[in-house]
Amino acid sequence: MSVITLTTDFGQSDSYVGAMKGVILGIAPQACIVDISHQAPPQDVRRAIAILQGIVPYYPPDTIHVVVVDPGVGSQRRPIAIRTAQGVFVGPDNGVFTRVIADAAASGSLFAILHLDNPTYWLPAVSWTFHGRDIFAPVAAHLAAGAPFASLGTPIDDPVTLPLSQPQRLLDGRIRGQIVAVDHFGNLISDVPAEWLASRHWRFHIAGQLVDGLCQTYAAAAPGQLLALIGSGGQLEIAVRNGSAAQQLGVQADEPIEAIVHDTERNS
Amino acid sequence: MSVITLTTDFGQSDSYVGAMKGVILGIAPQACIVDISHQAPPQDVRRAIAILQGIVPYYPPDTIHVVVVDPGVGSQRRPIAIRTAQGVFVGPDNGVFTRVIADAAASGSLFAILHLDNPTYWLPAVSWTFHGRDIFAPVAAHLAAGAPFASLGTPIDDPVTLPLSQPQRLLDGRIRGQIVAVDHFGNLISDVPAEWLASRHWRFHIAGQLVDGLCQTYAAAAPGQLLALIGSGGQLEIAVRNGSAAQQLGVQADEPIEAIVHDTERNS
Amino acid sequence: MSVITLTTDFGQSDSYVGAMKGVILGIAPQACIVDISHQAPPQDVRRAIAILQGIVPYYPPDTIHVVVVDPGVGSQRRPIAIRTAQGVFVGPDNGVFTRVIADAAASGSLFAILHLDNPTYWLPAVSWTFHGRDIFAPVAAHLAAGAPFASLGTPIDDPVTLPLSQPQRLLDGRIRGQIVAVDHFGNLISDVPAEWLASRHWRFHIAGQLVDGLCQTYAAAAPGQLLALIGSGGQLEIAVRNGSAAQQLGVQADEPIEAIVHDTERNS
Repeated sequence: MSVITLTTDFGQSDSYVGAMKGVILGIAPQACIVDISHQAPPQDVRRAIAILQGIVPYYPPDTIHVVVVDPGVGSQRRPIAIRTAQGVFVGPDNGVFTRVIADAAASGSLFAILHLDNPTYWLPAVSWTFHGRDIFAPVAAHLAAGAPFASLGTPIDDPVTLPLSQPQRLLDGRIRGQIVAVDHFGNLISDVPAEWLASRHWRFHIAGQLVDGLCQTYAAAAPGQLLALIGSGGQLEIAVRNGSAAQQLGVQADEPIEAIVHDTERNS
Repeated sequence: MSVITLTTDFGQSDSYVGAMKGVILGIAPQACIVDISHQAPPQDVRRAIAILQGIVPYYPPDTIHVVVVDPGVGSQRRPIAIRTAQGVFVGPDNGVFTRVIADAAASGSLFAILHLDNPTYWLPAVSWTFHGRDIFAPVAAHLAAGAPFASLGTPIDDPVTLPLSQPQRLLDGRIRGQIVAVDHFGNLISDVPAEWLASRHWRFHIAGQLVDGLCQTYAAAAPGQLLALIGSGGQLEIAVRNGSAAQQLGVQADEPIEAIVHDTERNS
Repeated sequence: MSVITLTTDFGQSDSYVGAMKGVILGIAPQACIVDISHQAPPQDVRRAIAILQGIVPYYPPDTIHVVVVDPGVGSQRRPIAIRTAQGVFVGPDNGVFTRVIADAAASGSLFAILHLDNPTYWLPAVSWTFHGRDIFAPVAAHLAAGAPFASLGTPIDDPVTLPLSQPQRLLDGRIRGQIVAVDHFGNLISDVPAEWLASRHWRFHIAGQLVDGLCQTYAAAAPGQLLALIGSGGQLEIAVRNGSAAQQLGVQADEPIEAIVHDTERNS
């Protein structure tokens, strides 16, 4: 029986997540439901993209990932499902699966995208405001219970995608990226991949501050000190040991960051 | 093996919810434990009533719903269990099951209410301050593991109930209701049922503002604009697209709302 | 199949906890994963000790408890696992298991402590910053799936432990303790054990206030009134009925509290 993960912006103070779980368990009693996060900021599709990116590689490939960050619920935006080698994805066609689609396409494993237009797999009554409960949860549960993927709807090839941030390597060797997420600890996670930073000594400029060199661990800096390191997602990260870099620098997502090679040993 | 849901005001920063889950798994290792919410405001029995109302219809009828919002723990208030066609309910006799009881009675499925006075199904040592762990969790687990409902305690017919809000239809056609919950998004959920608003054009008055007409979806309004719609629970709801109506109007639960018919086409 | 509990300081807004669950389900699909808390304050090892203390006695003895409050991740601090009669514990060697070790040693059930140095049971690539995902989760999952405990690493006998707070009984009968945790309700939980307070009438001094006598329940005081009682962990607790003692007294963890016998009946 498949794992069904839930990522939403519903918070945990209402009945919304609980209602989705009830619908799933009514249809697929053996499903293993996993809460990923319900704390994406309201309507923040980009945040949901980042959360998905952090978990998908670690789940069995038959996992069903349900994502409900859905400001357009009830409008013309389509409900969709996507089948890839890394899992099945169910949610609104609003760009929340942009990276899933890009990654699957890049690896030749974007098997199918469906418009979920077969009401057989919905709740009998569908509200205008809560497709998480009325469409996405039952569709995921029917899949987990054995419904054939192709029966869920009609194939499409024009899913909505959002422009993803693109770090740049300049001709003079500098790297220009940006902060794409601020985590619970106040760590600033950038879009600069670790591979770009290998084998050289770098200096990083962010918010008027200079951070010299890459550390391996948070513990390599003194408490309260800014440091740069490769985060657990394989990207450049700015942190403060036992503190919040976001708070210390007054920085949030979209802040630019620049990396400059500084191989002093070569200049001497 | 039954599903056991947990709804409490314990928050998630302490060991309280974790201790309840351990007790359940020790007695009923196969139980499927589902967190509904642990974010009911402390001692807010009415909030727990609203959360329950939003989830119960979506759960299998053999689900065991445990609710621990229990300001009177250890006092004379009784621990109770209720069996209905929509599930079994376990928690304090403080009114938290008012709507469960009313709904079950209305549909002729209020099968039994028990005072949980049989210590066979409690933990060996019962504290004065944490019946969630010492009475409600083990009772629910024993039920899930097959204990007969009737063995849990003594039938009673005088459960505590609270007055529920009652929207009114006035002789002149106006409807007077109130906000019964503010959700995570700041949506204002009223007690006015959708059925009362069918087939006419309505105007809504709340906190000195006028909202004209019902939208079908949040996306039907401009970002930042107030709108009225039927929420996912089947009740009139006031929202702000991509924003918080609670914040914009400075409104919380108990705020009055009035609906007035405004069929302009009939006046012309 | 074992229960695996998770206690971290990761919060619930990122992908960190979700990634750990994915790793576990990939290795041990039948594992029952239980969220204890992810709201320990960042790097607050003492808070994690207190949370563990509140749950361990209520879990089956074959439970695997994973704790990731790990400011020294990637440094020389060792990853460890501990086997006791009350469960298996997996996490960093930074003192977070101080009480587990002390309790197990006291009851003669501290069976083994291992340095987790066998990469067979880790993820293939181990990051410098997220051992929760790359070492602790896979080790716990392999254990749940049947790996022999002894195969996980090398026995050690010098785990890091922290000084635990020690309440004192003075010669004149007074008791000096301190607040060790403030819970979600603002209740002040001390380190003074219930046994020390039996059979006498006590007065408690905290933050310049006097609290006279022990109540059995929160409901025994008037709303808003300070009271002392034995909390659900068996320790002296200062609370405010339907309110927050922490807020009312302006008190947090480490605040001293003193108890003085006041047997008026004996003096009269």
